[in-house]
Amino acid sequence: MAEKIAKQSDDFSRWYNDVVISSELADYSPVRGCMVIRPNGFAIWEKLRDTLDRMIKESGHQNAYFPLFIPESFFKKEAEHVKGFSPECAVVTHGGGKKLEEPLMIRPTSETIIYSMYSKWIDSYRDLPVLINQWANIVRWEMRTRLFLRTTEFLWQEGHTAHATHEEAEEECLKMLDVYAEFAEKYMAIPVIKGQKSEKEKFAGALRTYSIESMMKDKKALQSGTSHDLGQNFAKAFNVRYQTKEGNMEYVWQTSWGVSTRLIGALIMAHGDDRGLVIPPKIAPTQVVIIPIKGGETENAEINEFIDNLYEDINKEISIKVDDDERTSPGWKFNQYELLGIPLRIEIGPKDLKNKEVVFVRRDNGKKESAEWGDVKEKIKSVLDDIQENILKIARDFRKKNTFYPDDYNNFREIVEGEGGFLMSHWCGKDVCEEKIQEETKAVICTIPFENKNENGKCILCGGDSQKRVLFSKSY
Amino acid sequence: MAEKIAKQSDDFSRWYNDVVISSELADYSPVRGCMVIRPNGFAIWEKLRDTLDRMIKESGHQNAYFPLFIPESFFKKEAEHVKGFSPECAVVTHGGGKKLEEPLMIRPTSETIIYSMYSKWIDSYRDLPVLINQWANIVRWEMRTRLFLRTTEFLWQEGHTAHATHEEAEEECLKMLDVYAEFAEKYMAIPVIKGQKSEKEKFAGALRTYSIESMMKDKKALQSGTSHDLGQNFAKAFNVRYQTKEGNMEYVWQTSWGVSTRLIGALIMAHGDDRGLVIPPKIAPTQVVIIPIKGGETENAEINEFIDNLYEDINKEISIKVDDDERTSPGWKFNQYELLGIPLRIEIGPKDLKNKEVVFVRRDNGKKESAEWGDVKEKIKSVLDDIQENILKIARDFRKKNTFYPDDYNNFREIVEGEGGFLMSHWCGKDVCEEKIQEETKAVICTIPFENKNENGKCILCGGDSQKRVLFSKSY
Repeated sequence: MAEKIAKQSDDFSRWYNDVVISSELADYSPVRGCMVIRPNGFAIWEKLRDTLDRMIKESGHQNAYFPLFIPESFFKKEAEHVKGFSPECAVVTHGGGKKLEEPLMIRPTSETIIYSMYSKWIDSYRDLPVLINQWANIVRWEMRTRLFLRTTEFLWQEGHTAHATHEEAEEECLKMLDVYAEFAEKYMAIPVIKGQKSEKEKFAGALRTYSIESMMKDKKALQSGTSHDLGQNFAKAFNVRYQTKEGNMEYVWQTSWGVSTRLIGALIMAHGDDRGLVIPPKIAPTQVVIIPIKGGETENAEINEFIDNLYEDINKEISIKVDDDERTSPGWKFNQYELLGIPLRIEIGPKDLKNKEVVFVRRDNGKKESAEWGDVKEKIKSVLDDIQENILKIARDFRKKNTFYPDDYNNFREIVEGEGGFLMSHWCGKDVCEEKIQEETKAVICTIPFENKNENGKCILCGGDSQKRVLFSKSY
Repeated sequence: MAEKIAKQSDDFSRWYNDVVISSELADYSPVRGCMVIRPNGFAIWEKLRDTLDRMIKESGHQNAYFPLFIPESFFKKEAEHVKGFSPECAVVTHGGGKKLEEPLMIRPTSETIIYSMYSKWIDSYRDLPVLINQWANIVRWEMRTRLFLRTTEFLWQEGHTAHATHEEAEEECLKMLDVYAEFAEKYMAIPVIKGQKSEKEKFAGALRTYSIESMMKDKKALQSGTSHDLGQNFAKAFNVRYQTKEGNMEYVWQTSWGVSTRLIGALIMAHGDDRGLVIPPKIAPTQVVIIPIKGGETENAEINEFIDNLYEDINKEISIKVDDDERTSPGWKFNQYELLGIPLRIEIGPKDLKNKEVVFVRRDNGKKESAEWGDVKEKIKSVLDDIQENILKIARDFRKKNTFYPDDYNNFREIVEGEGGFLMSHWCGKDVCEEKIQEETKAVICTIPFENKNENGKCILCGGDSQKRVLFSKSY
């Protein structure tokens, strides 16, 4: 651990890999494109997963589990879907020593297998809505992979709902987008932009795709969650119908929505710095690390006693680690826990003992201050709250500073090809302009933000009419 | 729901399927041998998983996640292992539209992929022990499948540890067996027999396999968890070595241990009865259901008020559901929640209102009793505790009643081929006797129980010397 990591300003991409590897969040596996999520990374995933799982349940959904395998024939039932996903599929052709009659695809997403079950379970309007979520592993055969950001196998949750009306489905779809946005901002301290994807970027098989987009520290966008209004496309492909109160048979209206282990990549790149990770307290597996600075024997005994008491007092509320390992120096430990992004470090040595104080060092801004023993417990809580808020504020300010509103294509290109950032520019709505801009500048339309007001403007490329600025950016 | 289910005494196997399907724990999927775990079943799995996960962490382990895919060449490195598992493997031959250079096996267990990483991570004695667990899906191409008990895909946890000495590894292995036994008895209310597997039944690649075995209501045994002392077999195959304090290079000593969604099958068959599931309170996703019995309008308002207050008062400690759906009758509800195995039902109607009482009905023994309003909260807790204990006691008594100690092979066969049960009999230790007994009677050696004392005896089949009775039974 604690190897040298590249500077963000020198090589952001190398910085990212260095941080992931040296903080032991993940490692490359011997299987092409697959990663190993190591205990440090998995502990973060557990915090993200458990927090979001609670929010998904509180919004009325239940968890279930569907098969990893999807028969090839199922996959082909929705035309757009198969076109979008089959180039990415891993295929099982043999099982139990024999060639299979029909190849099985490993789920790249589970619409088809899940809706084949819904068609069995749903008979009547009384069975609706169906509100189910699953946490699962997913396989997409990616050509270029990056730890957490794009891997052949990843972990995610996928919600799949069925409703009696389109209005209800659309409401669900936007409600879950709000849940994702709240989750990102409140817990991950990542401000997001909610909006609708362009036709070109929508999910294969959806009527509409909504997403949340966040800015990384290299000013690129990262799609951090999507919610799809599937219309009746899959319902028709899988014959998911219900009898209305009046006795008619109607197709259901469906949604699906998901976030993945990619969020760990977002967390790293939204907050990390040249010293390593910066983990917001609400997501940090360890919120506070206490490091004793050794002195004489009597002093050490008193220091240990203070630490033991503090630990007992607070460890049910705050996740706290004491590192009194004598094989490593305090300085080494400081670097190590900064690399790991632990929000708050508390030091206590002989001098602090004399003053009945401890030293607080914050990871978000590096500030040091003393706290009296009697105040420590309350102060830990208030400082953690403050760190959480400050990390969000820093990310918000950073995004604001790096968001531009160019109306001229040369200016647009200068920004994209120079410092980068979010570009809110007008777009005529045509695929051809979207594609040409991407080809020429590598900036894509990340989303059509809800927050952008209607206004008359001209497409940044062709000058055609536009009613709204959309979000362009280089993107992960 | 609430379709007719077969009687246990008429057809235990049909009873099992009927209960699983009608309580909506699981369903057959369109993919050969794979099941869908429905929300009712998954909620039980979440309780089992979260409880055991806490115990695994408290015993010093951390979670991680390793790839689903295992290169075929890895798989072949440990000779016994590949022999045991390759006939059960699903094989990916194509990815991203192309034929793969090397086929990938879908993990039937993860020793090989995990230990290839351990060989990268472990350098020195300072890196030991490595204590890692993962929750994952597993694929084994089973010929005959049963929901939860034996499915092509299932969910499980697998612990994988590496140690400096054999003693330490063996200690870990037995410690985790104790964790499983405590988990089964304390939470699932299933008494288990701990012991060692015979050579024939041990894990492919292990030095020794330990297991916990429990008795189902048809008197068959179900292996409910295994813990393997892997010796240095995999360490040698994957070159997992460490430098000792003295500077020598040594192979590590390893263990692996796991339990799976099979435990849900154990829960159903250990406690269920002709009315459906019986779920122990500590594992029940819903512990108490309150059913109002409607009367006049004023009475209903008072009943609702009482229920709202009780709910507010207790729902943070006890998982409680109120069913005031007017489309179904109280009688229908009683049957339904008995089918679902909810430990405690509380009824309150106009008569109870007058007496300021409610009626408690226990799922474990069907007993009804009244409780005064002021006592309800405390009584719920004490009755749930009592139900938990009673379910374990019933299972213990049942096992005791159906455990036999035959010393004569004719007697042995009479029992196995008649009423069934656990047979503690002497065995000479030879494969040939073990196989012949299985062939003739279908009873297998489930385990060599720790609890059986050393004594001189004669093998139940061949009369050869034996020092210990072993556990024979028909087994799942």
